Amino acid sequence: IYTMGVDIGSTASKSVILENGKKIVATAVVDVGAGTSGPSRVMSEVLEKANLTMDDISFTMATGYGRNALEEADMQMSELSCHAKGAHFLFPNVHTIIDIGGQDAKALKIGDGGHLENFVMNDKCAAGTGRFLDVIARVLEVDVSDLQDLDAKATKDVTISSTCTVFAESEVISQLAKGTKIEDIVKGIHYSIASRVGSLAKRIGLKDDVVFTGGVALNKGMVRALEQNTGYKIHTSPMCQLNGALGAALFAYQKQRNLERKSKKLV
Amino acid sequence: IYTMGVDIGSTASKSVILENGKKIVATAVVDVGAGTSGPSRVMSEVLEKANLTMDDISFTMATGYGRNALEEADMQMSELSCHAKGAHFLFPNVHTIIDIGGQDAKALKIGDGGHLENFVMNDKCAAGTGRFLDVIARVLEVDVSDLQDLDAKATKDVTISSTCTVFAESEVISQLAKGTKIEDIVKGIHYSIASRVGSLAKRIGLKDDVVFTGGVALNKGMVRALEQNTGYKIHTSPMCQLNGALGAALFAYQKQRNLERKSKKLV
Ligand code: SF4
Repeated sequence: IYTMGVDIGSTASKSVILENGKKIVATAVVDVGAGTSGPSRVMSEVLEKANLTMDDISFTMATGYGRNALEEADMQMSELSCHAKGAHFLFPNVHTIIDIGGQDAKALKIGDGGHLENFVMNDKCAAGTGRFLDVIARVLEVDVSDLQDLDAKATKDVTISSTCTVFAESEVISQLAKGTKIEDIVKGIHYSIASRVGSLAKRIGLKDDVVFTGGVALNKGMVRALEQNTGYKIHTSPMCQLNGALGAALFAYQKQRNLERKSKKLV
Repeated sequence: IYTMGVDIGSTASKSVILENGKKIVATAVVDVGAGTSGPSRVMSEVLEKANLTMDDISFTMATGYGRNALEEADMQMSELSCHAKGAHFLFPNVHTIIDIGGQDAKALKIGDGGHLENFVMNDKCAAGTGRFLDVIARVLEVDVSDLQDLDAKATKDVTISSTCTVFAESEVISQLAKGTKIEDIVKGIHYSIASRVGSLAKRIGLKDDVVFTGGVALNKGMVRALEQNTGYKIHTSPMCQLNGALGAALFAYQKQRNLERKSKKLV
């Protein structure tokens, strides 16, 4: 049995194909999200990588911000449940998920069985989200993907005192004018986000294993900053951006099995 | 007796010269604030307009964010007290001041005699401050000073649902892409700021006369938006940006009179 999970976020579309609810057959990420060609492109891409067609997929589960617009899906599920499910597959001992996405940040409390117990979320303020990194990267004239390498080269601690993205942008401009090195500024920015998101996570309480997901989790500088801020070992995986799609594919497998059981009873 | 008030803000320097604590002799505004040449330029300018030199000034009072760096000042006073004083001079019946500056917003509760009773302030979040207008004007490729004329031309109500400056900026970009008229967007932005600042003011309670000060008070679109949001008649004056400097000059006059009384007793 093949099942597919599709996670349509605000800034990216992600998909995972799973075999028998256990083996990841293929994954794909497209850098545009809801309301674009992203969802259909990510599905073609993941099918091609798996060397399958839509007819081979038993059940497709959509999640994420744009999940209701995906006509190909058999069902939709909340991204929070999918995140919990995906992280529990990758890290069976997960109890806290910190997720920083393109324009929100959330912290999830996960029970022993991998179910969602509680969560807190910020989607009102750009500070502490991926958007903050986008804004600062633009000012520094670097690519967001370069931020982790820059952070690794930092030699001095620079404090960005404004929490607001807009005021922090001005602070960065005046640091540049003072001759502060870009790498030191980048490290300061990572600490700033870590402090915002760390406070968010502390509201639900942290417990090992702490798993960091979402696109921003690919940035090792952010991982280090979060470890320093929270005092916990932070687990990530190259799959971290695909966590929601993975959870959706896992739920798709469960649904498919339930359907099969029911149809057997009917026969 | 001539006294001088100098208000050194984050984005502008303002000065007022007063004769006998009653008559405004000259005023000046320079568009750069603390840490620049603004303070000394605004002082030269106001002296020149009054046709006076520093020797003619009996007492100089500095106020505002950069007040402690002004060596020429005889004394420093908090900007909140100066704002209350200045507004009471211009509007003897003032009981509420709403001040929107370049990077903060505050609401002051004023007692019958013109003294400060209470205040609330936002200087942590760019939303609801002049900075929000700067960011949006940049995206719309218009000058901040054009915003009120654009607002006056608006024919449709556009709601900007994000309160965050950064997210609102993206909303404005997608409104532009949808073909929404700039003037309608500008009006929506004014409502957005009014709703933030209105909520701030409601925390201390509004009472007539409500006086709107700070650089943003020069924008008639903002005045209308605040009237609609609060339900109060909003009073402004072309002097509204000079309110802090005016209050400082008034306090300077009081201090000078006290000094004179003391020295007479000594003789
Ligand atoms: S603090 Fe800054 S980033 Fe946060 S909501 Fe306000 S304007 Fe947006």
